[in-house]
Amino acid sequence: MTMSLPADLWPEVKPDAARRLMYAAVESFARVGFHGTTTRDIATAAGMSPAALYVHFSSKAALLFAISRDGHQQTLEMVQRVAGTDGAPVDRMRLLVERFVEWHARRHVVARVVQYELEALPADEYAVVAALRRRIEQFVQSLIADGVKDGSFTVPDEKIAARAVLSLGIDVARWYSERARKTPKALGREYATLVLRMLGSSAR
Amino acid sequence: MTMSLPADLWPEVKPDAARRLMYAAVESFARVGFHGTTTRDIATAAGMSPAALYVHFSSKAALLFAISRDGHQQTLEMVQRVAGTDGAPVDRMRLLVERFVEWHARRHVVARVVQYELEALPADEYAVVAALRRRIEQFVQSLIADGVKDGSFTVPDEKIAARAVLSLGIDVARWYSERARKTPKALGREYATLVLRMLGSSAR
Repeated sequence: MTMSLPADLWPEVKPDAARRLMYAAVESFARVGFHGTTTRDIATAAGMSPAALYVHFSSKAALLFAISRDGHQQTLEMVQRVAGTDGAPVDRMRLLVERFVEWHARRHVVARVVQYELEALPADEYAVVAALRRRIEQFVQSLIADGVKDGSFTVPDEKIAARAVLSLGIDVARWYSERARKTPKALGREYATLVLRMLGSSAR
Repeated sequence: MTMSLPADLWPEVKPDAARRLMYAAVESFARVGFHGTTTRDIATAAGMSPAALYVHFSSKAALLFAISRDGHQQTLEMVQRVAGTDGAPVDRMRLLVERFVEWHARRHVVARVVQYELEALPADEYAVVAALRRRIEQFVQSLIADGVKDGSFTVPDEKIAARAVLSLGIDVARWYSERARKTPKALGREYATLVLRMLGSSAR
């Protein structure tokens, strides 16, 4: 697995030690999974003692939760910003897919953890993240509904179509690496075209 | 995670003890990941001693390889059977997506392991599985090329389009569970329609 974490992840997390622990955790979770990682592994990779880790995070699960919640919140804010404007549904959908795909390509290591380690979250933390996911899906679904209403989209099932739109973007995190032929931006544009076709739009 | 393994997995694997170990392994890999599983966990779940496990598989990685190779071979055979016939590209693609999606929904626990634990394979075993994956991608890509040639598909980039077709199906393994509103078969049909649209087909 190519491990490459953008330098600008979590600029808002303070102090530096906490951010360093999140970097170390995400790297190890992506490589050997949540259950294959110990808090000692994370502390060591961040150049700290296990005791110093507990100053910032109460457990390995608390680290996973911080990473997962942040990833979902960023995505929700982006989706809300794009889907919630009053532009034409086709334009909003194009922008949404471009940004969503670009995010999953550029941050593919983080996105893998965010998407594939969900089941490792304790029940209460899982519920918080599941609620964020539902809101993301709802925004996409209601954007599709807007397009169906104004005649720019036709889909057999709006819920399944929303699922497929998000699915295409999420799966980018699984296969994307720095060796991919397309930049995250170019891939986003290409996928936006595919999605608009999938939604039965003639604006392609 | 809903653990439900179809009873008819690996009918060709003999003896029963080896098949039982594969069931136990896939269940644990899907639940806590390859790195979160020990050979002792697998042996215990299969009602055997660790020593008895080694009679059938030389290592935990050998179990993962058996599961992964079998999943990829089944998929390749299906893709080859459907894509390699001389029907119209639209009909072949519809059938391919229906079967591919149905496989990933019905066997979602196995498919998760097959798709998401790839990086845990040792280099030689990884190479075998990667070669099977490339052949699957090539069949899909050349089916798209057939459709472009006879005018039934139009895509900006055949390689990216093939990736997107497979991506949609693979991601089903991530989100599908027995609680999903659609049966594997119904989901396959719905996704086939979405894919044909994505490929610019008018036959939808």
